[in-house]
Amino acid sequence: MEEIDVAVLGAGISGLQAARLLRDRFSVRILEARDRVGGRLLNHTFANGDTVDIGGQWIGPGQDRMYRLVEELGAATWPLYDRGDNLLVLDGRSRRYRGTIPRINPLALADLGLAMHRFEKMARGLDPARPWAHRRAAAWDAVTLRSWIDSNCRTRLARQLFAIAVGAVFAAEPDDLSLLHALFYARSGDSLERLLAVTGGAQQDRIHGGTAGLCERMAAQLGDCVQLGSPAKKVKATADGRLRVDYRGGALLCERLIVAIPPNQALRIQFEPELPAWRDQLMQRMPAGSCIKCIARYERPFWRDEQLSGQVTSPAGPVRVSFDNSERGRESGLLMGFLEGDVARHYSGVAPDERRQAVLDCFARFFGERARHPLEYVDKDWSSDPWTRGCYAAFLGPGTWTSYGERLREPNGRIHWAGTESASQWYGYMEGALESAERAAREVQQQLERAGALHV
Amino acid sequence: MEEIDVAVLGAGISGLQAARLLRDRFSVRILEARDRVGGRLLNHTFANGDTVDIGGQWIGPGQDRMYRLVEELGAATWPLYDRGDNLLVLDGRSRRYRGTIPRINPLALADLGLAMHRFEKMARGLDPARPWAHRRAAAWDAVTLRSWIDSNCRTRLARQLFAIAVGAVFAAEPDDLSLLHALFYARSGDSLERLLAVTGGAQQDRIHGGTAGLCERMAAQLGDCVQLGSPAKKVKATADGRLRVDYRGGALLCERLIVAIPPNQALRIQFEPELPAWRDQLMQRMPAGSCIKCIARYERPFWRDEQLSGQVTSPAGPVRVSFDNSERGRESGLLMGFLEGDVARHYSGVAPDERRQAVLDCFARFFGERARHPLEYVDKDWSSDPWTRGCYAAFLGPGTWTSYGERLREPNGRIHWAGTESASQWYGYMEGALESAERAAREVQQQLERAGALHV
Repeated sequence: MEEIDVAVLGAGISGLQAARLLRDRFSVRILEARDRVGGRLLNHTFANGDTVDIGGQWIGPGQDRMYRLVEELGAATWPLYDRGDNLLVLDGRSRRYRGTIPRINPLALADLGLAMHRFEKMARGLDPARPWAHRRAAAWDAVTLRSWIDSNCRTRLARQLFAIAVGAVFAAEPDDLSLLHALFYARSGDSLERLLAVTGGAQQDRIHGGTAGLCERMAAQLGDCVQLGSPAKKVKATADGRLRVDYRGGALLCERLIVAIPPNQALRIQFEPELPAWRDQLMQRMPAGSCIKCIARYERPFWRDEQLSGQVTSPAGPVRVSFDNSERGRESGLLMGFLEGDVARHYSGVAPDERRQAVLDCFARFFGERARHPLEYVDKDWSSDPWTRGCYAAFLGPGTWTSYGERLREPNGRIHWAGTESASQWYGYMEGALESAERAAREVQQQLERAGALHV
Repeated sequence: MEEIDVAVLGAGISGLQAARLLRDRFSVRILEARDRVGGRLLNHTFANGDTVDIGGQWIGPGQDRMYRLVEELGAATWPLYDRGDNLLVLDGRSRRYRGTIPRINPLALADLGLAMHRFEKMARGLDPARPWAHRRAAAWDAVTLRSWIDSNCRTRLARQLFAIAVGAVFAAEPDDLSLLHALFYARSGDSLERLLAVTGGAQQDRIHGGTAGLCERMAAQLGDCVQLGSPAKKVKATADGRLRVDYRGGALLCERLIVAIPPNQALRIQFEPELPAWRDQLMQRMPAGSCIKCIARYERPFWRDEQLSGQVTSPAGPVRVSFDNSERGRESGLLMGFLEGDVARHYSGVAPDERRQAVLDCFARFFGERARHPLEYVDKDWSSDPWTRGCYAAFLGPGTWTSYGERLREPNGRIHWAGTESASQWYGYMEGALESAERAAREVQQQLERAGALHV
């Protein structure tokens, strides 16, 4: 049986980064369930050669690790098309606006602005490394984000728009989320405003070759230490204190393990001895969000002719937010829309043709009849993907942060936890995946060096 | 490979009952992970021969299936000791009371009574088979039970006592639960009052030989169709439409499968083709409660001398509710206390001796110094048990009933769902486990008979 220093579960961006940080000093192997690297980052190539991210795609200011990685790997970014007017499609009428806040009636606008201001102020007071430690953590974790929105927005429209913003950020409904989790999440990415913004925010930049392309470059550097098609089945402590990892088709022995897969996936691995109750019950309480990413390709981005940005907010949906996802330097126009939360849950069970039709009907309501007839259409339902089972990330419902959260990043013996769901900065984003990889790699390195010193 | 009509996963009371209902007409096999039957029902035998339920133990009025089963199997029940005074231990002082509502100051008492009245009235309006269909379901599912308690109790004491009641019923904190789930749960067991009551309620009767004894009798009837030590690993649809179940040590082929294990356990089984997103995400959103059941054995039930029932309510805890669990016809006095919700989460990680000491210190505060020195002590942390991972049952947090609940009992092709978490009556109780078994067995029988007719 192969004997190595460190095994990593998952060749998403977090697992790949952890391996990169450790491989100079230690023998490392990544076990990846799929026959590709990238996890929740995935390219789709259209018939004309256009490549588009059908998983996570954006980076923005404050995500320093990601910009550094892009540079290191010799990739390049370009800004999402963000010129012209955005649309708010409400009760069948379209209104144009710029920036993140639509032009709505002054009362609802003030209402929404005040609620967002209050939310941001609460979020700013949180330490994202220790949200449970805030003096109001218990109260904030005892209520849903929906309850908070309902108490803090007086107008129906402000409530709707706040809920859409949440759907776009979490791929979940405000009912699902603990207020504390929503505040933590916003704070961990600086602020809700930054999470919502395009230019200057989390939707600012795309990466040439796609985010999955980054992962492929990382994997190329790592060479044969990345092992595809090898889902881990069982992790067992051996008599000498090491860990034996059984995966489909083989087994290995390692000194330390880094788990860099989503919580709902880690829950499905058998551990021997069993993980303690707190870790298992915590993972039981970290369900994944619900998201279907839909992209239509047109001959050209025709909406730009009418000074439209491609960005739409539409409470009626089913696409509640859309973007101009056209690749820089290519002629095609790509419209991208998210089905999120309850809408994703519904359309996940609907026949592909019917789903496609519903999305294109919606694009036609936004941009006219031409949008109903793309050259190509593709979508990806991440909740149906057996190695992900939901996107963008796991969320914490009420009670979980304060009952279990303190131990979210705590290793279990020689088992260390990475992945964006263990990040304190930019939880849920690629940046968080890198941050968690650095932390887990540091933990492992310290332990292995300490053990090495003892052996000498 | 063995070929049978019906495979059942889990030899808890639900799986056993499903097999009993089907075995006369069809070939049936139960695959049980443990080397015992009973699931969340488990006996402990003390050194003197006293046997006590260290898992689920009570039945009460309205649980007709359970009383019928007890009679069918030739077992007998006896009522829990429910004479003398109950204690409310508050701020270091003990107050005696009778029934379910402690003697507290009139303002808090009226406050608590009104809140419970309001809760019961809302619950009565629900159809427990379709809680999502109530016209206020969306609003009730958008808030935590904590939010509702906080808005509906004006006094701190009423809030505390309502929260203890919830802890005792759900083994969870009011933060964790959707209000709709709490209302559904109460309605599915008739009313909150019935769930809380001893005589006339869900804690009325014990079963001679323990509830696990019932399961053993059921298993004895089923003979070698119960297969122990055989955790299911993978369920795969074969080319001819049947299901192949791979378990540790073997595999079988079946026409239909009944899954009668808790949702968090079913989530860990691999399905091929994969379960649809709605089923997987629903199971991700059904975490188990947190409960440690603790029992101390004394020479005799000395508290009865002081006209105490053994029933205590104590917000300070760690034991927040206790009972006189002495067996009828035996001399020993058995005190039973629950560690629940956050308290269970804390004590799950504490060394056994320290946990024992904390519980006995607490019993001593309730019943005097004698309680500190039992002849024997035993506890069972169900969250640490790898085949259960939490008790009493799975709960649904905000948003889940209305987003996913409608399909809770819907079969997935040839896979049918049983277990108390799929019950509409007495969800979370043994009675619910039997109700779900009847429904799943009926579904399977109808399908197999229809298929049989087609073959003829």
